[in-house]
Amino acid sequence: MLLAPQGGRTARLRSSLRNSTALRNTEAPQKLPTPANEPSVADILRAEAACADIGQAGLIPTGAAAPKRQRRRARADLAVVPPEPSDRGIVTPRIAEFLDRVQPATPCLVVDLEVVEGNYRALAAALDPASLFYAVKANPAPEILRLLARNNGHFDVASRGEIDQCLEVGIRADRLSFGNPIKKQSDIAYAFGRGVRLFAFDSEGELEKLAVAAPGATVFCRLLVDGAGAEWPLSRKFGCSFAMAKALLLRARALGLDAAGVSFHIGSQQCDLSQWDKVLSQIAGLYGELAAAGLKPTLLNLGGGFPARYQKEVPSIGEYGRAVIAAVHRHFPEMPRLIAEPGRGLVGEAGVIESEVVLVSVKDAADPQRWVYLDIGKFSGLAETMEEAIKYRLKTPHDGGPTGPVILAGPSCDSADILYEKANYELPLALKPGDKIRILACGAYTTTYSSVGFNGFAPLKAYCI
Amino acid sequence: MLLAPQGGRTARLRSSLRNSTALRNTEAPQKLPTPANEPSVADILRAEAACADIGQAGLIPTGAAAPKRQRRRARADLAVVPPEPSDRGIVTPRIAEFLDRVQPATPCLVVDLEVVEGNYRALAAALDPASLFYAVKANPAPEILRLLARNNGHFDVASRGEIDQCLEVGIRADRLSFGNPIKKQSDIAYAFGRGVRLFAFDSEGELEKLAVAAPGATVFCRLLVDGAGAEWPLSRKFGCSFAMAKALLLRARALGLDAAGVSFHIGSQQCDLSQWDKVLSQIAGLYGELAAAGLKPTLLNLGGGFPARYQKEVPSIGEYGRAVIAAVHRHFPEMPRLIAEPGRGLVGEAGVIESEVVLVSVKDAADPQRWVYLDIGKFSGLAETMEEAIKYRLKTPHDGGPTGPVILAGPSCDSADILYEKANYELPLALKPGDKIRILACGAYTTTYSSVGFNGFAPLKAYCI
Repeated sequence: MLLAPQGGRTARLRSSLRNSTALRNTEAPQKLPTPANEPSVADILRAEAACADIGQAGLIPTGAAAPKRQRRRARADLAVVPPEPSDRGIVTPRIAEFLDRVQPATPCLVVDLEVVEGNYRALAAALDPASLFYAVKANPAPEILRLLARNNGHFDVASRGEIDQCLEVGIRADRLSFGNPIKKQSDIAYAFGRGVRLFAFDSEGELEKLAVAAPGATVFCRLLVDGAGAEWPLSRKFGCSFAMAKALLLRARALGLDAAGVSFHIGSQQCDLSQWDKVLSQIAGLYGELAAAGLKPTLLNLGGGFPARYQKEVPSIGEYGRAVIAAVHRHFPEMPRLIAEPGRGLVGEAGVIESEVVLVSVKDAADPQRWVYLDIGKFSGLAETMEEAIKYRLKTPHDGGPTGPVILAGPSCDSADILYEKANYELPLALKPGDKIRILACGAYTTTYSSVGFNGFAPLKAYCI
Repeated sequence: MLLAPQGGRTARLRSSLRNSTALRNTEAPQKLPTPANEPSVADILRAEAACADIGQAGLIPTGAAAPKRQRRRARADLAVVPPEPSDRGIVTPRIAEFLDRVQPATPCLVVDLEVVEGNYRALAAALDPASLFYAVKANPAPEILRLLARNNGHFDVASRGEIDQCLEVGIRADRLSFGNPIKKQSDIAYAFGRGVRLFAFDSEGELEKLAVAAPGATVFCRLLVDGAGAEWPLSRKFGCSFAMAKALLLRARALGLDAAGVSFHIGSQQCDLSQWDKVLSQIAGLYGELAAAGLKPTLLNLGGGFPARYQKEVPSIGEYGRAVIAAVHRHFPEMPRLIAEPGRGLVGEAGVIESEVVLVSVKDAADPQRWVYLDIGKFSGLAETMEEAIKYRLKTPHDGGPTGPVILAGPSCDSADILYEKANYELPLALKPGDKIRILACGAYTTTYSSVGFNGFAPLKAYCI
């Protein structure tokens, strides 16, 4: 079910959305066409241009299926439905077929690798000429790493553990960037010994470790930017001021390191494209100052921030990527080597969590507030519901029927294990224990956040299909 | 180091605390006397009465050590030191010896089982005649389960997984209480099949499941109380109103269940003893109403809430437990069968996390705010720093030297992985990468909250000694 917790939507709109969703729910799973195995970038760009309104989940409609999709859409009440909810972050036919056939124990995550591949190709095309370094932390499933490696991907790793995960599936060390600015010296030495040559830093202390443990390596300085407009906002934890970055890059060169440039993070799930322009303009100024000081930066790391579709509609991957690259062109007439680090934007929409309703209850006969308890919670995979930051969309078997407000909570005995209390979620009144609830766009930041066994609940199981 | 982030303390006090801690730091680990293997309840009560000011960490000073301790204390500036920081939640000599000898890779948790046993015996004595049902979720290490089982313990379990953990170490099913009011019917059936006969509920839906899957079982209704005064406050997630509890208990009887009474949770880390009086008085009223309706409750489950010592001093286990039992006596002239569910209060103070400083940095040359990054964070065991709720005490190799304010953060690339930003922590100015920091009173709610591998960091390793 598509929920509309943001207050501004009307009951009429909600009812329309419900109808259009109900259509999807009650139709038998149909095999949507997926891109051929190796489409060229030009193919993708053509397809994107043709289908910009459909979104870029990698399920690009071509040939015979397109008319069918249009027919389906025509049945919804177009007069009151605003821009068609796109097909991004849905239960794909492959996921639906898997869940229906295998009936896995819940909770579990199912990732559609075709969506990951489609997203990767679309983003690579839109961000051309940037090299994509997949942020492994988003989802380190070996199937995803192998898929992206086959597609010429690079990888942003946060720890020795993630380096090992990459190397174990056969990824070459020269395709890795050790992007965590906070590393033990022993881990830097380990990475360098395995062949990693690209490292982040944001402090003098880290530079000193790098100079000792990774002599001559290519390094980039993480900048502190404010991340305004992002749904999962950044703290000041990473990065340093522009003035300090300049001093540190000059110091890096003095220490014998290849002081290549800077990185920044625009804020996870950043939908405000103007933020990019603002930061890139500041960085262009910094690069000018560095050049004047005799250090010409050769690298610009754009970080991540490419959004996945949760509650709010987000720009298509194509639109988004092209806007970012256009901003780079505006501020850097002479383009440095570009790196981008998508994580959520590649895998977020590719995964669906299948969960089960454990209990529906009220606290008093006179208090109509329903509590719905699922078999997954904050400590078993849905950590990004912290402070109700990421608002997942949900699908239930009763979508289309009358709904009412709910507080949604996890299964553990921890009273902080509440998913949504203030976000005004509504769920069908017919919901009952045993019903399956599908949580959409859960491919990123779920499995690895899962606790090892809080309250005796097993970690989130995942299937990559 | 003992930190005093609460604003009210003076620099003079801080300096005195530092001095007294420094004394402890620089002394060679000394073997404090521990209770003999099987002291009687009377022994414990006598020891508690004699040493009430020292705290009840199970390291009861008797014989030759007491004068030495007094001498040590006399060296501190008693004129400005308020009640001596007790020995609760310290690095015990056994933990210090283990860390010094084994030098385990960090981060890791070391639990001193003698402290757990001491706490258990002290609390069992103080809460007599209540049966203690250890809240397994606090720390399900098999060594702890076995130890408590040997001491005639009972166990409060939250899931099928925790039932299995208990059965695997040889605990009999009739010693378990399935205390999570939110259970899948299949898990209730599993528990009943294995021999569990005591179950919590707080809703009609759960009663219906219990009637089907655990016919004739003993059930108790979880009440919703406000948990005011607790450091880890409760939400409204668990429990129902008193009026609903009455109706549900009568319904339970009608469904053929043994409707035995109620449970409540006073709030984790609850230091306000008056809260107990308030709730017990209300429950006595409810039991009167039930008796008038022909249902005489036979059970009262006091839940948990027994505090561990973090930043704030807390009442001794003896004081605390006796006050609770006195309140029960005041309101229940005819005492029902009593159950208590300590978790944090038994194991919290028994564990120390050994961690390492990864980086000390600033964000700008003109900004003196130090950031200290540890190799453990919110997603690798310290989840209870969420919203800076639990404020752990820290010890560093530089305790006693000059300190300055810090923001303390974890090692992951998640910008939300900040431990303390608002809590005004101070750490030595001499602190540098590679230094070990010991995080005190980490025995509860750490290992199992740890993520399976967020950012490629392994789950928190634990040693029970």
